[in-house]
Amino acid sequence: MESLNKSSQSGIKGLFASFVGFLRKCIFHVLSVGPMPTHIAFIMDGNRRYARKKNLKEGAGHRVGFLAFLSTLKYGYELGVKYVTVYAFSIDNFKRRAKEVQYVMDLLDEKLEELLNQKSILDSYGVRIRFIGNLSLLNESTRVATEKAMAGTAKNDKAVLLICLAYSSTDEIVHAVQEACNEKWNKLQEMDSNERGNDSILATRAMTHKECAIKLADLERHMYLSGVPDPDILIRSSGESRLSNFLLWQTTYCHLYSPAALWPEISLWTLLWAILNFQQAEAYLEKKKKLA
Amino acid sequence: MESLNKSSQSGIKGLFASFVGFLRKCIFHVLSVGPMPTHIAFIMDGNRRYARKKNLKEGAGHRVGFLAFLSTLKYGYELGVKYVTVYAFSIDNFKRRAKEVQYVMDLLDEKLEELLNQKSILDSYGVRIRFIGNLSLLNESTRVATEKAMAGTAKNDKAVLLICLAYSSTDEIVHAVQEACNEKWNKLQEMDSNERGNDSILATRAMTHKECAIKLADLERHMYLSGVPDPDILIRSSGESRLSNFLLWQTTYCHLYSPAALWPEISLWTLLWAILNFQQAEAYLEKKKKLA
Repeated sequence: MESLNKSSQSGIKGLFASFVGFLRKCIFHVLSVGPMPTHIAFIMDGNRRYARKKNLKEGAGHRVGFLAFLSTLKYGYELGVKYVTVYAFSIDNFKRRAKEVQYVMDLLDEKLEELLNQKSILDSYGVRIRFIGNLSLLNESTRVATEKAMAGTAKNDKAVLLICLAYSSTDEIVHAVQEACNEKWNKLQEMDSNERGNDSILATRAMTHKECAIKLADLERHMYLSGVPDPDILIRSSGESRLSNFLLWQTTYCHLYSPAALWPEISLWTLLWAILNFQQAEAYLEKKKKLA
Repeated sequence: MESLNKSSQSGIKGLFASFVGFLRKCIFHVLSVGPMPTHIAFIMDGNRRYARKKNLKEGAGHRVGFLAFLSTLKYGYELGVKYVTVYAFSIDNFKRRAKEVQYVMDLLDEKLEELLNQKSILDSYGVRIRFIGNLSLLNESTRVATEKAMAGTAKNDKAVLLICLAYSSTDEIVHAVQEACNEKWNKLQEMDSNERGNDSILATRAMTHKECAIKLADLERHMYLSGVPDPDILIRSSGESRLSNFLLWQTTYCHLYSPAALWPEISLWTLLWAILNFQQAEAYLEKKKKLA
């Protein structure tokens, strides 16, 4: 009798889940009549505050936050968003207490392993993972885990998940400047090999220096996110309305949205509301982009 | 009898104005117990929409917007804000209709002239004007007007008004990169003059190229806003929450605020509310800045 009750309860739960799934798809269908974002970026802020608020032990907020991240990812890809970028760990975050840094890195290793083993979300939505940032700052085990995740999903081509790790926007810009300078330097070197004589080298270099002035397009080409369309929406949870050195270069005309919910509390409605706001502003945005 | 009435009416008005001024000072005093911003930046958005909303003729929105700008400036300096930056005209704005561009430039010439003649706000608050942007893109008369305004207020040293004209953030960054490259180039030239012989020059250059890699500090030094503290608050009117290529480099940890009011509707309360929000977030911001 008890097992009958349980089976009937689980049947009701299953039915309810199917109904919710159906409802969600209906909403997504209605929403997709309007212009849809291609790229959404997230600053997942508030994991620690959530843990304090709920009296959870240190680090537990990040675990709940990871579940919120998985749901958001799923909803995003179901909505047809092709690129999702998340700010997982900034260069500044390395200055937090060593214990906390280690905890987040261990959690990252563990969750990447889990994702790749199950491959549930990644494979069912055809998601390729890319890590963005100065990965040389990571410790050996995390670097190996990131390489494994990139290699393991390299064949997926429907959507992309960009994880910013050891990232800051100013670091990205400085890196792009240095790469562009190296490119220019190599051009100068090439000139040298074609020239003979001191005066000639100097004259050629002076000319090349002027011709090779670094331009906007050179910087664009060397950004970590080169080739990825700029985000249409940037969502920062926990009501903070700052970019905190995240995608400064790429959010020039991006719609910024700061819901009050802490990251682990983020829900489908947050995402839907952000997209609705984006759609409202889109006509104006499109006009601006055309003027740009 | 009529003149007596008029004089009594104007007396009442005067009294009321004094009372409002007194009340404002009291509020400012209470507010300044908390941490106060040193630098506030404004994107003055919504002038054209205001004109359409109020059925005013083209350009009238900008004139009302200028009055709102004067009041905001006054309140800001009364509150002890040292730097106010406004986004007056972006490089992209040059792509608007020629007639509109000309109208805004004429209005700017006229208002700068007015400001300098009266010198009311600028002198009473000791405000120096600085123009920020690629000023070589301006027409002759506007360029002359900007130079006159900078020269005419050069001696003021209590506060600074930074007017971004023919400005975009990506242009500022590319300009800084080019300046840093030129600096590096000059260092290489200097090396040449101390060296003799082809091989020696090449060896020295290769060494100098590595030593002189452009760093964050080099870019910082060549930004238009170098030497000015980063804005604490960026207010964009008319509910738009995008940076539109304004101060991307400088708003890394800045509090962003997007009130719904169109720019000509902006009031003292908008400013007070922005500062209150900033003060609430300040403890968190300060902690982040220390970590950075």
